[in-house]
Amino acid sequence: MQDALLALTKYWTDRGCLMVQPFNTEVGAGTMNPATILRVLGPEPWHVAYVEPSVRPDDARYGENPNRLQTHTQFQVILKPDPGDPQEIYLASLEALGIDIHAHDIRFVEDNWASPALGAWGLGWEVWLDGLEITQFTYFQQAGGQTLDPVSVEITYGIERIIMALQGVSHFKDIAYAPGISYGEAFGQAEYEMSRYYLDDADIEANRRLFDTYAAEAERMIAERLPVPAHTYVLKCSHTFNVLDSRGAISTTERAKAFARMRGLAREVSALWTERREELGYPLGVVARPGLDGDDAEPLLPDAPMAELPGSAPLLFEIGTEELPPHEVTNTVAAVRSAVERKLGATRLGHGEITAVGTPRRVVVQVDAVEPREPDADRTVRGPRVSAAYDADGAPTKALLGFARGQNVDVSELSTGDFGGNEHVVVNVVDPGRGAVHVLSILLAEVVSELRSEKNMRWGDPALSFTRPIRWLTALLGETVVPVRVSSLASGRSTRVHRTAAEPVVTVPTAAGYLEFLAGHGIVADGARRRAAVVAAASSLAAGVDGQVDTEGEAGLVDEITNLVEEPNALLGAFDTGYLELPEQILTTVMRKHQRYLPVRAADGTLLPYFVAVANGACEADVVRAGNEAVLRARYEDAAFFWRADLQVPLEQFKAGLSKLTFEEKLGSMAERAARIETIAADLAKGVELSSADFSALERAAALAKFDLASQMVVELSSLAGVMAREYAVRAGESPEVGQALFDMELPRHTSDALPSSLAGAVLALADRFDLLMAMFALGAKPTGSSDPFGLRRAALGVVRILRDAPALSSVTVDGGLAVAADRLRAQGIEVGDDAVAAAREFVVARLAQQLRDEEVPADFVSAVLPGADAPGQAVATLSALRSRSGDDGFRSLVAALQRIARIVPADTAASFDAALLTEPAEQRLVAAVSALGDWSGRPVDEFAEAAGALVEPVNAFFDDILVMADDPAVRAARLGLLATISAHSPRSVDWAALDTALG
Amino acid sequence: MQDALLALTKYWTDRGCLMVQPFNTEVGAGTMNPATILRVLGPEPWHVAYVEPSVRPDDARYGENPNRLQTHTQFQVILKPDPGDPQEIYLASLEALGIDIHAHDIRFVEDNWASPALGAWGLGWEVWLDGLEITQFTYFQQAGGQTLDPVSVEITYGIERIIMALQGVSHFKDIAYAPGISYGEAFGQAEYEMSRYYLDDADIEANRRLFDTYAAEAERMIAERLPVPAHTYVLKCSHTFNVLDSRGAISTTERAKAFARMRGLAREVSALWTERREELGYPLGVVARPGLDGDDAEPLLPDAPMAELPGSAPLLFEIGTEELPPHEVTNTVAAVRSAVERKLGATRLGHGEITAVGTPRRVVVQVDAVEPREPDADRTVRGPRVSAAYDADGAPTKALLGFARGQNVDVSELSTGDFGGNEHVVVNVVDPGRGAVHVLSILLAEVVSELRSEKNMRWGDPALSFTRPIRWLTALLGETVVPVRVSSLASGRSTRVHRTAAEPVVTVPTAAGYLEFLAGHGIVADGARRRAAVVAAASSLAAGVDGQVDTEGEAGLVDEITNLVEEPNALLGAFDTGYLELPEQILTTVMRKHQRYLPVRAADGTLLPYFVAVANGACEADVVRAGNEAVLRARYEDAAFFWRADLQVPLEQFKAGLSKLTFEEKLGSMAERAARIETIAADLAKGVELSSADFSALERAAALAKFDLASQMVVELSSLAGVMAREYAVRAGESPEVGQALFDMELPRHTSDALPSSLAGAVLALADRFDLLMAMFALGAKPTGSSDPFGLRRAALGVVRILRDAPALSSVTVDGGLAVAADRLRAQGIEVGDDAVAAAREFVVARLAQQLRDEEVPADFVSAVLPGADAPGQAVATLSALRSRSGDDGFRSLVAALQRIARIVPADTAASFDAALLTEPAEQRLVAAVSALGDWSGRPVDEFAEAAGALVEPVNAFFDDILVMADDPAVRAARLGLLATISAHSPRSVDWAALDTALG
Repeated sequence: MQDALLALTKYWTDRGCLMVQPFNTEVGAGTMNPATILRVLGPEPWHVAYVEPSVRPDDARYGENPNRLQTHTQFQVILKPDPGDPQEIYLASLEALGIDIHAHDIRFVEDNWASPALGAWGLGWEVWLDGLEITQFTYFQQAGGQTLDPVSVEITYGIERIIMALQGVSHFKDIAYAPGISYGEAFGQAEYEMSRYYLDDADIEANRRLFDTYAAEAERMIAERLPVPAHTYVLKCSHTFNVLDSRGAISTTERAKAFARMRGLAREVSALWTERREELGYPLGVVARPGLDGDDAEPLLPDAPMAELPGSAPLLFEIGTEELPPHEVTNTVAAVRSAVERKLGATRLGHGEITAVGTPRRVVVQVDAVEPREPDADRTVRGPRVSAAYDADGAPTKALLGFARGQNVDVSELSTGDFGGNEHVVVNVVDPGRGAVHVLSILLAEVVSELRSEKNMRWGDPALSFTRPIRWLTALLGETVVPVRVSSLASGRSTRVHRTAAEPVVTVPTAAGYLEFLAGHGIVADGARRRAAVVAAASSLAAGVDGQVDTEGEAGLVDEITNLVEEPNALLGAFDTGYLELPEQILTTVMRKHQRYLPVRAADGTLLPYFVAVANGACEADVVRAGNEAVLRARYEDAAFFWRADLQVPLEQFKAGLSKLTFEEKLGSMAERAARIETIAADLAKGVELSSADFSALERAAALAKFDLASQMVVELSSLAGVMAREYAVRAGESPEVGQALFDMELPRHTSDALPSSLAGAVLALADRFDLLMAMFALGAKPTGSSDPFGLRRAALGVVRILRDAPALSSVTVDGGLAVAADRLRAQGIEVGDDAVAAAREFVVARLAQQLRDEEVPADFVSAVLPGADAPGQAVATLSALRSRSGDDGFRSLVAALQRIARIVPADTAASFDAALLTEPAEQRLVAAVSALGDWSGRPVDEFAEAAGALVEPVNAFFDDILVMADDPAVRAARLGLLATISAHSPRSVDWAALDTALG
Repeated sequence: MQDALLALTKYWTDRGCLMVQPFNTEVGAGTMNPATILRVLGPEPWHVAYVEPSVRPDDARYGENPNRLQTHTQFQVILKPDPGDPQEIYLASLEALGIDIHAHDIRFVEDNWASPALGAWGLGWEVWLDGLEITQFTYFQQAGGQTLDPVSVEITYGIERIIMALQGVSHFKDIAYAPGISYGEAFGQAEYEMSRYYLDDADIEANRRLFDTYAAEAERMIAERLPVPAHTYVLKCSHTFNVLDSRGAISTTERAKAFARMRGLAREVSALWTERREELGYPLGVVARPGLDGDDAEPLLPDAPMAELPGSAPLLFEIGTEELPPHEVTNTVAAVRSAVERKLGATRLGHGEITAVGTPRRVVVQVDAVEPREPDADRTVRGPRVSAAYDADGAPTKALLGFARGQNVDVSELSTGDFGGNEHVVVNVVDPGRGAVHVLSILLAEVVSELRSEKNMRWGDPALSFTRPIRWLTALLGETVVPVRVSSLASGRSTRVHRTAAEPVVTVPTAAGYLEFLAGHGIVADGARRRAAVVAAASSLAAGVDGQVDTEGEAGLVDEITNLVEEPNALLGAFDTGYLELPEQILTTVMRKHQRYLPVRAADGTLLPYFVAVANGACEADVVRAGNEAVLRARYEDAAFFWRADLQVPLEQFKAGLSKLTFEEKLGSMAERAARIETIAADLAKGVELSSADFSALERAAALAKFDLASQMVVELSSLAGVMAREYAVRAGESPEVGQALFDMELPRHTSDALPSSLAGAVLALADRFDLLMAMFALGAKPTGSSDPFGLRRAALGVVRILRDAPALSSVTVDGGLAVAADRLRAQGIEVGDDAVAAAREFVVARLAQQLRDEEVPADFVSAVLPGADAPGQAVATLSALRSRSGDDGFRSLVAALQRIARIVPADTAASFDAALLTEPAEQRLVAAVSALGDWSGRPVDEFAEAAGALVEPVNAFFDDILVMADDPAVRAARLGLLATISAHSPRSVDWAALDTALG
């Protein structure tokens, strides 16, 4: 391993990098060394390479886990500015490490990087070596809140992983560190002991004090305008925070507070560093900006005279990029095609069909039969009115002469034309057509410079911005190069094929047949064909082991895989059947999310110990297969490690462990939260009809609620909360119903997630969310526009979705749930104001409204049902009733009548009247109708609509015959009281006034 | 520079060293990295090399000083166990760095290393490259209070210095760090900013808190048995302590406390690490101990049959070592010679003259004409008395038969002999002589194994112990090798010459003419000849520039130089005359102490801008001269930097700066101490006769007292305190007398230092010391046997010496001075108990007693004058008087009389009597004599001795005639009162009782 470090150091110093030493205070990553995080700021060039032992307290595993270390070794490189070919330079460094890049499958897989604590982010990739992440490769966009110009390329090698792969060992301790001494022999004791400190023994109060002291020193140094010591103290803050975090001492609010503090400090340090470097006159000089010197001032118009073609020819235009994120491949192909079509349509250049295809590294547009030139075009230019064009003598006026001069024609060439009844002088102008090369040259440059994605970045180019760097342009009209110049890019007739090809850059003879040309170099440019190849190969490989791949169910994954390669090279890998003891969801989650492998199943759907991985292009299948298998094995070994360890732990012990997990400083531990959930669920259940089986499942599951948060597996993979609860509970002898309820209580985990399938689970899920919402609102921790650290929106939406979906839970209302939750919190001594309850209710209701609007329900209908939103299920039923009757004239009349009443009756009018005072016939008829109808205030709107039809005529008659606002106050009160009674007896779940325009 | 780091890394990893990373918390030296300080413990092997940016806050200079950096780069190597030839391996590493070791003068100059904070020490050298210290080379003996076995070799390269020398630049910022980027460009800003933090801006309270928190975490981790995190916190303590220190926030008591705490922690960490490694079963294995395996169980007796020589031959015995400390060369030569002589004398081996000479690398003993064998020796063994040897029948008794059997002779071979009048049976035995080789083989092995020095160390050898490693033995008797085996060493016929010689190991053909043989290899083995060569060359070189070298005045330095080389190669260097503006004492101190250069002076004694350096052996004179000149220039530049900076500062500003220097936590700043000294001096001066010039010099100097402690020069070179005061004061316009007083007040600085030459200076020096002593005793900070951090012994001895020496100060007493000092402290609010004053007085008086004893004054005389020791000058005068009269019978009678009185009179008897009750003639005569004599209690003993002679006869007559203890109490009281009056009227400065045995 030490040879590898020396080889990398030599490689990069030979390429002009400065070598510096690891930083002498604990850092979480090489990025935090000032040689990166400060030096990437400002305009000075900087090329540096160094080793950085990176300390991650929460990766401490006592040295027992084969892949996790509290201190791992990074090798960090910064290239500032972007040299233009950093990927190629990087690949050569792998060769310097002894990696045969022709044998292995090396890929750049989208992975963006952000450090909120440093106010920093960048776009880039993780580099995969046969599926193993060995390097983080990032174009740094911001640091310390500052936009970086020039952009730096950051390359971070994970040395232990690389060496484990190279040496073929499966535990970091077995790495041959130096001749005769293993990694474990050299560093094993430190790994164990520092793990002890970080996980078990660090004094929490002492570390809190350290954090505050460090932060205060950082602030003082900022005030003294000394960014270097200030940064050191920010790093010490950060490390101390990590220690506290790994000790489980950081609550969510503390985390947010600490991050805000560190981010603020990091920003100030960065700003100060930038200022100081400027004051020092930029000792290292200033990076020259390429392509923006004098004669490039007009980047869109190439200088050379344009070639003219004799006849029509196909156009090939390729935009060559570094690896695009998979979903951006599809987006970009469509966007480029449409831009070319639109722009061509705005010219007069004749052309045939436009097609576009793409891979991670290129977007190829082809246009058939492009005419050699635009035709000339006639155009009539309107001049002054004839009446103003000639004076009384018929001589041209000054206006006419000016017009002629402006059009560069003689007065004699002018004619006249009629414009809306007015006769004007006109001139007929011929616009000469431009040559195709000329037209395309401008047009294609615009396409490139206007290219944007969802998330854009900058690189070495001074003017472009896109999801990843654009590195080359190939533009051929037939055999002729179309000169396209965009910022620092200029088109040519060459393209780039696989980086590991014997000739990675090749010349394209002609536009025609370009896809075949690429195919000849092993590149399947057409995404549809690549996808088909992936599906076919995966199915065929799976069939070879009597399995199948659910390519339809995994469509999203297949799409992603398709756009991770230029030439699919599927291979079948296997894993030890022993891992099948693990819950399937763990295995498939790891395959899909982490590795982009397709799971292989038997005909009955059970998982087989195989997977299909898809490499890019030619490589040595055995090498790549072995590599991918080793990666999966390592990941499964991690999971199995947790799984086995967790299975040793009784559920009660997990449950007890919750008291060590801080939920929120003021709200206590996760154990206290679980206890609240348990009692809230019991309360909610009172109104719900539950079978006795459901009831006992609920009771038991409530008692176990959240226990899996204390398991190692969930600590590690928090997305498995609930999943693991079910697994561990059932294995510990709980009933399947209890397991299901525990699983269900975490649902829905996101907008499109499933809802609880069991009633017990639904009750628990509601109890969970009512507690979370009420607790956070009690603390005043409402989400803001951009920040929702506790996921309250998701929780509220979950409440809404569960209640909409479960008729059996119709007795549960938002008000009721929040009230119970509030009571529990108060019982724990936490103050819960009425305004907090109201705010929480409003927040949940607003989620229903938002959801309905997202379902394209007109706003007025949404408003109309909000009074009943407290019971979302009923509100949705009401909505449906209202909408189904919205075309019904009788209903519309009823609504009109109710609205008429609503308009005239003051809001505080009592719903009672002295019938004796209502003596007019219209009054008496209405009184009779109202009495006959009875009180519908709490009943469904649908039935009301039927019954209340009888009210329409008497109401209208009443308004026609009776002056409500009688002079006699008693009479007036009786009349208003009668009308108010109608309103009060109407379903409260509808805001009839809001239906005004909805039905209008 | 980065190439150099890579070259060293490659060199050492190629030789089996593990490469590790710098530690990720601030360390003061590579030694503190656990890869050194923990790994040197215990029996496991360990070979490691690493870079260590070492943080020394007190070396912070804002990047302005050309040679000082708050972070400098060490390259650290640990070889455990000692490979046997670490110096040679090291020299090859210099070649790997591109240093031509043949051209340069590379030397190993004694420099021992100790870190009290780490409980660690070792012996070794600083390695000089043309006078520049480039490496610390240490055989680690102890760490964390543990004796190390095996011993590790520690090699610490000072990279910036080496690179500055290699690149020929004179400021670290100008080092070419990497292509196109200088050290200053890369690290200049950090150097400035971290200097600001360490010198000006670090928050003292925050850092104190950090220190305590770190120490507490270290303690907790020790309790948890986790030495690795504990050590990390010890390092953090240490760094924080250094920060506080460089901020001037550490008082002497705090320093002692902090060191004790850190040392305690370091010891516990080390012990724990050792235990843990043992518990882990020594994962790296255990170092095999050379030379102690089975067949070497008897190391002193070689196995081979011994050669026999035909005739006498000269013996050559050489003990080859690594570079001995200069004074040990002389000691060892003498010791080896005397051991050989003594041991030879205990054999019967005939031999001629024994001579011994030596160099830093060898001790050579030569013995002329060693006989080939010891002669046989007759020996008479005494048996039983004849009377017991034969029974009545004349037959042998059992006793006789037993004796004969024991001596292995027949009874018939026995004879008889007379032993003190008793006749015994005897047997005459012949002891056969042993061969010379045999004798020498045993004898020389003993010489080596018994070799010891003042301070001994261990190295790779399992059994030897000496000041530096012994690496070879050459033993020839004529042409025959004398086999000498000592532990892992075995003698041979080869020796080692200069390490840079073409053949560094050569074969010695024969013992005869060995010194000439060595001379042929450029080695002057005889110290006297080397010394003469040094003197001659230095004188001649100096004469070349019309100068001279005071080889007699510099005799000690010449001795040292002589023993730093095997072949003196003197060269004349020059320095810029500009530096002559600096006080000569600075220039010569640097030359002598730091560089071992001989100053060159003009005939009138003024310093010339030249020096003589003495290189070892052949090298390129120009290269070596240039190197030495550069080193001196750098040192002078440092000094000049401080000098110039200090000269810009008004004395008042220095004086004000004293308030920022903590003297002692409870006693306040150095400014407060200086103020106390000023007033104490004024008080002492009251009783002293001073000329008005002396008086005003005293007044002004007292006002300026200690100001130079705030100067950069003294902060840097504290031994120049006083020297710089004089220089700066006079240059600031003060009178020479004021300057002298300021200089004098620091005298004496050590036991053999000069005393103040001016009266004003003497008064100030006393005031300084009275304050120090009284203050420390007031705090209870008495020195213990081994610890005297405030130098109180030195201070007390200074008081004694000054008062002994200056008759003009006879009015000043220890009591008086301490009382004044106590008053001043009390005025400052510091509690000073009477017992503290008494203890301080006793402490000072004890110094006088000790001093007198050291001057071989008999103990009784010392005791006799102690009552007057409060005024040491008078006490010494008294002593002198007593001793000069000690042979005088009259005086002895007087003393006897006084002692007779002392014995009979109870201690509390009042010195008065009622003369009316004394009616006997003897009484009346004595009363008359007493009255005539009068009161001498405060007067000199000398005069008293003359006058009191008249008392002897009346006293003796009184005792003869009178019964003192009369029955009548009144008479008895009168008689005792009379005698008590005699005692009371005798000089109080003498304890007459103590003179008892002195005169006996």
